[in-house]
Amino acid sequence: MSGRLFVIGLGPGNPGQITPEASAAAAEAQFFYGYAPYVDRLTLRPDQTRIASDNREEISRANAALEQAAGGASVAVVSGGDPGVFAMAAAVCEAIEAGPAEWRDIELTIVPGVTAMLAVAARIGAPLGHDFCAISLSDNLKPWELILRRLEAAAGAGFVIALYNPISKARPWQLGEALDKLRTILPGTTPVIFGRAAGRPDERIEITPLAEARAEQADMATCVMIGSPETRIVERGDKRPLVYTPRFSAGASQ
Amino acid sequence: MSGRLFVIGLGPGNPGQITPEASAAAAEAQFFYGYAPYVDRLTLRPDQTRIASDNREEISRANAALEQAAGGASVAVVSGGDPGVFAMAAAVCEAIEAGPAEWRDIELTIVPGVTAMLAVAARIGAPLGHDFCAISLSDNLKPWELILRRLEAAAGAGFVIALYNPISKARPWQLGEALDKLRTILPGTTPVIFGRAAGRPDERIEITPLAEARAEQADMATCVMIGSPETRIVERGDKRPLVYTPRFSAGASQ
Repeated sequence: MSGRLFVIGLGPGNPGQITPEASAAAAEAQFFYGYAPYVDRLTLRPDQTRIASDNREEISRANAALEQAAGGASVAVVSGGDPGVFAMAAAVCEAIEAGPAEWRDIELTIVPGVTAMLAVAARIGAPLGHDFCAISLSDNLKPWELILRRLEAAAGAGFVIALYNPISKARPWQLGEALDKLRTILPGTTPVIFGRAAGRPDERIEITPLAEARAEQADMATCVMIGSPETRIVERGDKRPLVYTPRFSAGASQ
Repeated sequence: MSGRLFVIGLGPGNPGQITPEASAAAAEAQFFYGYAPYVDRLTLRPDQTRIASDNREEISRANAALEQAAGGASVAVVSGGDPGVFAMAAAVCEAIEAGPAEWRDIELTIVPGVTAMLAVAARIGAPLGHDFCAISLSDNLKPWELILRRLEAAAGAGFVIALYNPISKARPWQLGEALDKLRTILPGTTPVIFGRAAGRPDERIEITPLAEARAEQADMATCVMIGSPETRIVERGDKRPLVYTPRFSAGASQ
C-alpha cells in the first residue's frame, strides 16, 4: 500500500506568489513536514497534521515523510521558494535512493515555486537578464575551496551570481571571504544586491558597489546577487533605481 | 500624467502555475503587449486590449508599452516563465534607460513567475539541487565564442547547466556544437534532460546520456539541462526515473 508524497514550493513568502498548484497540493495532504517557519505559512485544517522540524534536518525529515507515505498516507514536504533549488527535493530524492525499495513506488509530485533570486530580481529590475548562476555558500555540504573555485569561474566568465544561504551563525565568515574573492576579479563598481523578504511587508533591498559590500548587510534569509561587468543601474529620481543586465553582450552580431 | 506598467510572468504554461499576484496584475491592466502565444494564455475582458507581436521584437514592444503607460494607461507586458530570465524585464529596463526621462516616472511592477528550468526540474526530480547556471544559446545577442567560454567554465567548475533558447530556425547548429563542446569536458554518462511543455498535456521529457544527446531532441520550447559529474539517476521500475544532483559534494566536512 503506497501513498503519495508532495514536495511543495511555497515561494519566497508573499502569499500572492503561492501557485494554485501548490495550494491544491496542500489541500490534498494529511501530514505536513518542514522547517517550522515554512509550515506555518499554511493554514491547516483540523484534519491535517503539522510535523515541523529544525532547518538542518533535511534527510531525517525526508525519511520520516517517505516512511509515512509508504504506509499509505498523503504527505507533504514543504519548502520555501522552489523545492528544487537548495531545498527539499534533492533531499527527498537522496532518501529514496538510499531507502527501502518500496519507497520508489510512492507517487511523488514535486510542485515548483518562485525561488528567492527571481523574486528579488523582480523587485529591482532585471539583474538576471543575462546568463547567471546560483551558488549556495553553505560549506557543510561541500569544501570551501570548491565554492571559491566556482565563484572564480562564474565571475571570470561573466555570469551574474546569486548566492543562497550566504550567512548564518554556523557560517559567519564565508560571505565576507566570497566578496573579497570577487573583488579580485570584478570591477569595484559592480552592483551587489542584498535582497531580503522580497515582496513581504518587511522587505529590505540594498544596492551597494562591490568595493563597499559588507557581509553584515546579509542575514540567513537574504539572497545576495553580484552583477556582471555589464550590469547597469538606471537612476529614477526618488524611486528605487533599476538594476539590470542587458540581453546583449559586447561583440554580438546585431 | 504617468500610468502604470506591469511586466508579468505567466510561468511555463500550466495554468496552475500562474501566481495569484500575476492574475491580479492582469486584472488591473487595460492593454496587453507580448508574443502572441503568451498573450493568448490570458482570457481578456471586452474592455481589455491585446497587442500581440512577434517573438524577436522585444525592444519595439517595450517601447510601445512604455509609451502607452506614459500617456496614463495601465499596461501589461506579458512573458512566459519568469520575465527576468531571458525575457521581457531586461528589455523594458533597457528601453527605460534609453527612452525619454518621463518613462522613469512610470510605476513599474515586475511580477515573477516559475521559470522553465524549475518546472522541468520538478517533473524529473531535483537536477538543480546543487550549484547551477542558466545560459541562453541565442547568439544574436552575444558572440558565440563567449557562449562556448561560459559552457567550458560552468562545466569545468561542476555547475549543472540549464540551456534556454537552445535551437530555432535562425539558430540550427548552436545546440549541437554546445553538446560537442560539453562532451570534451564531462563524462559521457552525464544525464542530459530535454524538457518540453513541463506540466502541460503535451509534455515531453527525455533523459539521455551526454554521449548520445542530439540537438534534434530539442525545439524552440525545450529547456535542456546538462547534469554535473555528480548528478545521479534513480530507477523506479515503470515510473519515470528520478534525476537529482546531491546537496553535498565529495570532500565536504560532513
